[in-house]
Parts: sequence; C-alpha cells; structure tokens
Amino acid sequence: MAKNFPTRKENYSQWYNDLVIKADLAENSAVRGCMVIKPYGFAIWEKMQAALDKMFKDTGHQNAYFPIFIPKSFFNKEASHVKGFAKECAVVTHYRLKTSEDGKEIVVDEDAKLEEELIIRPTSETIIWDTYKNWIQSYRDLPILVNQWANVVRWEMRTRLFLRTTEFLWQEGHTAHETKKEAVEETEKILNIYTDFAEKWMAVPVLKGTKSPNERFAGAVETYCIEALMQDGKALQAGTSHFLGQNFAKAFDVKFLTKENKLEYVWATSWGVSTRLMGALIMAHSDDNGLVLPPKLAPIQVVIIPIYKKKEQLDLISVKANQIKKALEQKGISVKYDDRDTHKPGWKFSEYEFKGVPIRLVIGPRDLENETIEVARRDTLEKEVLQITDIENKIENLLKQIQSNLFQKALSFREDNTFIIDTWDEFKERIEKGGFILAHWDGTAETEQKIKDETKATIRTIPIENLNEEGKCIYTGKHSKQRVIFARAY
Amino acid sequence: MAKNFPTRKENYSQWYNDLVIKADLAENSAVRGCMVIKPYGFAIWEKMQAALDKMFKDTGHQNAYFPIFIPKSFFNKEASHVKGFAKECAVVTHYRLKTSEDGKEIVVDEDAKLEEELIIRPTSETIIWDTYKNWIQSYRDLPILVNQWANVVRWEMRTRLFLRTTEFLWQEGHTAHETKKEAVEETEKILNIYTDFAEKWMAVPVLKGTKSPNERFAGAVETYCIEALMQDGKALQAGTSHFLGQNFAKAFDVKFLTKENKLEYVWATSWGVSTRLMGALIMAHSDDNGLVLPPKLAPIQVVIIPIYKKKEQLDLISVKANQIKKALEQKGISVKYDDRDTHKPGWKFSEYEFKGVPIRLVIGPRDLENETIEVARRDTLEKEVLQITDIENKIENLLKQIQSNLFQKALSFREDNTFIIDTWDEFKERIEKGGFILAHWDGTAETEQKIKDETKATIRTIPIENLNEEGKCIYTGKHSKQRVIFARAY
Repeated sequence: MAKNFPTRKENYSQWYNDLVIKADLAENSAVRGCMVIKPYGFAIWEKMQAALDKMFKDTGHQNAYFPIFIPKSFFNKEASHVKGFAKECAVVTHYRLKTSEDGKEIVVDEDAKLEEELIIRPTSETIIWDTYKNWIQSYRDLPILVNQWANVVRWEMRTRLFLRTTEFLWQEGHTAHETKKEAVEETEKILNIYTDFAEKWMAVPVLKGTKSPNERFAGAVETYCIEALMQDGKALQAGTSHFLGQNFAKAFDVKFLTKENKLEYVWATSWGVSTRLMGALIMAHSDDNGLVLPPKLAPIQVVIIPIYKKKEQLDLISVKANQIKKALEQKGISVKYDDRDTHKPGWKFSEYEFKGVPIRLVIGPRDLENETIEVARRDTLEKEVLQITDIENKIENLLKQIQSNLFQKALSFREDNTFIIDTWDEFKERIEKGGFILAHWDGTAETEQKIKDETKATIRTIPIENLNEEGKCIYTGKHSKQRVIFARAY
Repeated sequence: MAKNFPTRKENYSQWYNDLVIKADLAENSAVRGCMVIKPYGFAIWEKMQAALDKMFKDTGHQNAYFPIFIPKSFFNKEASHVKGFAKECAVVTHYRLKTSEDGKEIVVDEDAKLEEELIIRPTSETIIWDTYKNWIQSYRDLPILVNQWANVVRWEMRTRLFLRTTEFLWQEGHTAHETKKEAVEETEKILNIYTDFAEKWMAVPVLKGTKSPNERFAGAVETYCIEALMQDGKALQAGTSHFLGQNFAKAFDVKFLTKENKLEYVWATSWGVSTRLMGALIMAHSDDNGLVLPPKLAPIQVVIIPIYKKKEQLDLISVKANQIKKALEQKGISVKYDDRDTHKPGWKFSEYEFKGVPIRLVIGPRDLENETIEVARRDTLEKEVLQITDIENKIENLLKQIQSNLFQKALSFREDNTFIIDTWDEFKERIEKGGFILAHWDGTAETEQKIKDETKATIRTIPIENLNEEGKCIYTGKHSKQRVIFARAY
C-alpha cells in the first residue's frame, strides 16, 4: 500500500495528487492535460451519475445526445459566449491522415482540409439551440427538459487531476421555457438538486448563491452556484445553474407561438456538474491515512478480512463471513470478502483504509468461538468488538452514522472557517490563512478585480440565504447592499 | 402522427429514414454526418446500455475512462491498425480561436498550433495499451478486464442515422491476459454475451462466427462477430470481439513477469457494440405502421388511453386506470397513462402504434360497467377485450409472449431467407433478391474480392456452428473446407 504519503500539513497539494494516484482513482495520460479515470475512481463517478440521473428524471428531465462538434461559426452567434470560450478551444481542421512521401511517417493529409473548422464542444448551448430551433414552434412544444452526459474539452494551461483537466466528463442540462418565471424556477430547482446531492450523497455542505457578473457563465443573465470549502481553506465551485434569458434564443432565432398567438423568443437555462465533483469529494473528507468516502458513494461499503493461521480456520471463518456478506447484500450494502492468501491482514488493513472503505470487519478464530466480530470505522478510525447477532442491522445503522458524521464534520469545519470581516487589513491577513470571508462589497466589477489582483481572492458567491444587512465596502468604503463570500478558489 | 410514410416495399431505405425521424428517435444535425439522438431514441439506448453493462459486470469487467485524444505518433506503432483507420480520422491541429484583425470574424489562432496533432479516437487500442504499459509488471496484475462507454469518430463519407455516422456512441472492452488461451476464451465469452443480448433483449437472431482476413479488424489476429439479417435481405454486423494476439503488447512494449519469472508479451482482446444496434433493432421488427419494439427495450411498455365524452366519465376511468398503472408498475412494467384532453383517442392510438409501444390498453365507460379492458398488441395488431381481474399478470405474460413472438418471427424470416447455393449463376441471381447465402469459398482474399466486385456481396462470417462439409468454391471451383455466409451488407 501507499507509503511515502505526505500529510496535509506538510504539503496539501502533493497530498491530493498522491492520494488520487495511489488510491487508484485516476492518473495523467500521455495526452497533455487529459486524465485516465481508473476503475476504482470510475466506480465512484458511476455512483454519482446514477444518483444525479435519478434526481433529474424524477423531476421530469430526459436524456439525449448532441454532437461533439460545433461549427466554428456557431460560436460567433452569441457574443459573450464566444469571448468566454474562444481561448480554450480544441479545433479540428482535417479529416484524414496519410503516409508521408518517404513512406516513413504518418502525416495530416492537406487535401482533407475542412471548409469550416469544427470545435470540440467546451459546452453545448450553441449546437443545442441550433437544434431546438427545429423542435419548437408553439407553446405546446414547451417546456423542453433535456440533459446529456458527455465529455467536453477546454484547453486548460494548468491542469490537475479531476479539478481542472483538458477533457472532462459532465452532465449538461439545457431547458427551454415559455416564460421567464418558469425558466428562473427551473434554474433554482436544479440548484436545489445539486445542493441535495452535494449534502446528502457527497456529505459536502455547500453555500447556495449567485455569481457576480465577473464570474458569470459566458452567455448567462444570472449564474447560480454551489460553493464548498476544502480542508486547505480554498473554495471549490461544485456546480452551476444558469438562467440564460433569451440570449441563445435570439442568437439562434428560436421563437414560439404563445397561447395568445404571438411570436416570442424562448427562455432558457443550462446547468452542469462534472468530474470535478470527484475532486471535491476526495478533498472534503480524506485524511493523512488516505481516502475517506461517504458510504453512499463508496464502491465497496464494507470489507471483511479473515485472520487465521491454518487452512481449517480459514474454512470455518469463510462460512461465517459469507453468511454475513449475504445478509448485508440483502440490505443493498456492497461487500467485499477479501480471503486472498497472497496478502497479509496488515497489508489488507492499510489497503482498504487508504482506499476509503467506510467499514472494515475482521473475523478471527476467537471471534468464531465468542460469536463476535471486530468493526472498524474509516471516518473516526475507531474499532470495537460487537456480538455478531443482528450484525446486518448494526452495520446498516453504522453506515448511516458515518454518512451523517462526515457531513457534520465538514459542516463544523466550514463554520469554524467562515469569518465576518470588516476591515481591509483583517481581510488581507485572513485570506492568507484560508476560509470563507463574509465581507461587504460595493457591487462593482472594478473593486472585485482590484481585490483579486491584491489578494487572489474572488467573490465565490452572493449567498441566497444572506444576512440582510447593509454596510460599507471592505475595499472602497462605498455603500454595500449585502455581504458576499470571498475566498481563494480552485 | 406521421403519415406520408412509405411502406417497406415501396422504398425500404426511405421507410427506415422516415421511421427514425418521425418516431423521434434521431435526426441529422448541423454537423455533417453527426446525429442528434432524441430523448425517445436515447431512452432505448439507455436500456441497451443498462442490460449490457450488467452482463459485463456480472462477468468481472469494470468500467474506466480513457482520453478522447490519441497522439498521432501512437497510430504508427501498429502497422495494420494505422492502415485501417488513417483515412477516416478527425485531426485536432490547434487549441485556440481568436478574433480576426478586422474584428468581424472568429478565426483559428495560428500561434496556437499543436506540436503533434491529436486524433479523435476512432477506437482506443493505442491510447489504452500505452496506459496498460504502466499498469502491468507481473502476472499478478493480470487479467485486466476493462470496458469504457464512449463516443468515437470515424470520418465516414456516406452516413445514415444510427447505421453509419461520423460520431457514434459505443462501448469498447480492452482486456489483457497472461496466456493466449485465456485471451481467446475472453473473446468467445464476449461473443456469447453479445449473442445473448441480441437474441434475448433485442429479439434479433444472430449468426456467430469469425471474419475472413479481408474483413478483420485492423490489428486483430482473429475477429469474431455476430451478423443479423434485416427485412430487406441485407446483413448487418451487430457486434465484434477481437483476439488481438500480442500485436498491441509488442507495439507498446507491454511485457509481464510470468510465474516462472520470464518476461513475456501480454495477450489482448478488444470488443464493441455501438449505437448501430439501434439501427438493427429498428429494422428487424418494425412494419409499415411504424416502429415495433421488443418489450424488454421499450421505454414505455404499456400505454393506457381513456375513452370518454364527459369529464365525470374521465374521472371514473382515471381512478381505474391509475389502479392498473400502479399494479403494473409494481411488477416493474413501465406504463404511461395518457389522459391529455388536447388529443383525441384516435390520434393517440396511431401515435403509440407508430412509436412501437408493445401494449395499448383502452378503457371506456362500458368497460367500467363490465369490468373489462381492451388490450391491443403492437406486434400482431390484434385486439381483445379482457376481464380486468388479475390484469397485471395477464399483461406481464403478454409482454413475454410479444418478446418471444418477435424473436420467432425474425428467426423464421432468417430461416426463410438463408439459402444453400452451389452454382455461380444461382449465386448471382439470389444475391439480387437478398438473404444469407451459404456457399463454398476457396479461402483466398483474391476470390473474396472478385465476388465482391461482381456482386457487392461480402463474406459476412465463417459460422462457428457450421455444416462440416467440404466442397468446391462457388467462384473458382477450387477446394473449400467449409461453407461461409455471403450477403450484401449495411
């Protein structure tokens, strides 16, 4: 198992990278900025997908699939959208390779140049609204509530596994509505789904709010977001839901006949979460012993390890272990019984600890005699010996406790690291130590930029559940309508 | 609902295209050769994915994700692989756009040219074997049984919705083994999974066999396939499973330490099915009234339609309909109760018929009095009035019957359209009418090519379950070891 593993205090950034790689979650590939998501990491992502997909479907959304390519000209149709994405686009210019004249190499065939270059989608508003144009004639065709699970590409210069990669996986919802009100409600509904998912599945508490104009999605009227606080005191944007107004409908000329027989532009939303959530999940709970996973997203929730000297002991233990495994599985709990004789128990203990398996059960010969079992929790590292009777209910409850403990722990951490700050000196001092800062802001992009330039802190969100309190801007002293959340961010 | 819909006899090709579009399965996008998979079509694909994914996992496979980009040089490492794919590759050459000097346009930024071009994966053997090199040191690291669900791009010149598109969705399995025997067994195990899926889920009978060298996957030692026969007498390759020998291990230098402490190259397989299966599903069962779906893959298995004149009647019918819906759903059957008052029953009948919903239930006021319900089957178009008692079990059984009837019907069609042919004149005559032709072949690529040039027929497969019969080649009269399947193909 992974040793030579730095503590968070020693080197948080290295701790994260090593954790991702040594816990077999993901690794860098031969292609700059692109990652390979390994089976153990992908199994967590699949659990996230399944939970989110169900939430979307339960609220009336359907999945579909749109092309990965976007004609270059489409980007130009929505002015702020192109500004936001043009600098990080992968561009397809040719559609054929050939053997070089000396026969030694493979080269791009210049005869196969595209008339119009294709962009690999960094997000799909443009291709989707070009499609919706044909789907929408009247109010009867609305709403359209569509989501897609897809890969997207943004040519990032500095990449980090899961947090910022050139290619990443995500879901992107794109909805179309009759009225502004309905579109805003959809945007907020999705924000609540993201919040529920972050808090109830990932056990990560998040702040809900809107973005300042500087941080808004390119093409949106309003961007809602959820923001989480990581253990190093940096913020991580975990999901965004955009109210797009009629911007894309106007760009792609999508009008509908209203009930009153008038032609109007359609109202839109878009929203997404990505494999970046994996980064949030890993950083929120893990410790110096490795990964810590909330039970609801752990690919293996319980591991059973036998301790024995002789083959006959193992046989007896295996009978009991398989009974327990079966009883747990009948409750929908995923269990691995690791009876490999190629590895010693101690090795297995640290293996599963490092990989964040929430509960470890150990059975030895004495346990068989006493009808007991050793139960170890990954979150607290506590061990206790329990009577084996009714073990499946005990474990089921313990998994719930662990899920809730992880959330409470993360919530306490956030509370301890959220600061109400009223002077610029305090602000500069605090920002170096990390955390969320609740401070007054005069509402201008200029001030926001200056604060960023001086401290690397950005406005993470203008919280929805706010202190309804006016005040003076921390930087300019001008009037402020409310406090906003500042932090350094991933 | 869709009228002006050609019959299969009038124009099979138009019938297929219209069916795909008018049944809301998919449509062409603004990007040449790329399709939009619409929610109803995607819901079928999701059911296919879920069934296949479970079969893969039940046999020990895990999902992972590898980059969409492949460095150009990787292709050159396996000689026949590059030959097979170079001519249809989408090539990324730049990573940034910018505003043109006159400020009017968006153009490719020539300063952002990649040093090495990236290919969008047409298949992932190369990038995956480059990754496996780091995963495999000893026999303890084997086998690797990994699958990925992904999009791939092959620059096809002539495209058709689902059957041949520039971008398509698929799964690709890539496994690594200690021995040749184990790799061949894996290849065959997957072929059997594909066969089970085609026959038990899609209700499409398939022939299992190997490909002739001409039709083999670029880089494979042996390609196994399943071939289905469509209603127009053309063959469709529904899935392939490749034994790759040590070709990719050699190309990417992937060796492992055996139990005997020797260094050896790893043995490999790869296998895939794609959204092309949607084409097979649609073409295998549908008729001149529209789509026909096997119950196991139908997004809506049962639709309930009320017939009424007055609101009070609808209210009473709705109580009964919702009871039935609930009872069916408790059996895991997906039901839609369509009580919209914006459409007449007749419109709804043809809508769901066209969309291939396996069973339609109709309840009117007289049914309420008599405790009856009208049950219509999509496959046979038969209707009958049943007592409502125990309706959920009756429907459950009927769905099974429909599933089995569709398979039997397709099987009979194939049997009626499989011909043992022994003379070249008969062969030429028969091939014009379609069907599978079992004929002798001398085993040479030259003869295969000549037959293709003269008749457009190719060897679809060398069947595994074969008539063990020697004979003379249909074309050259030379010795033949066995009959093979010829057909024109999609």
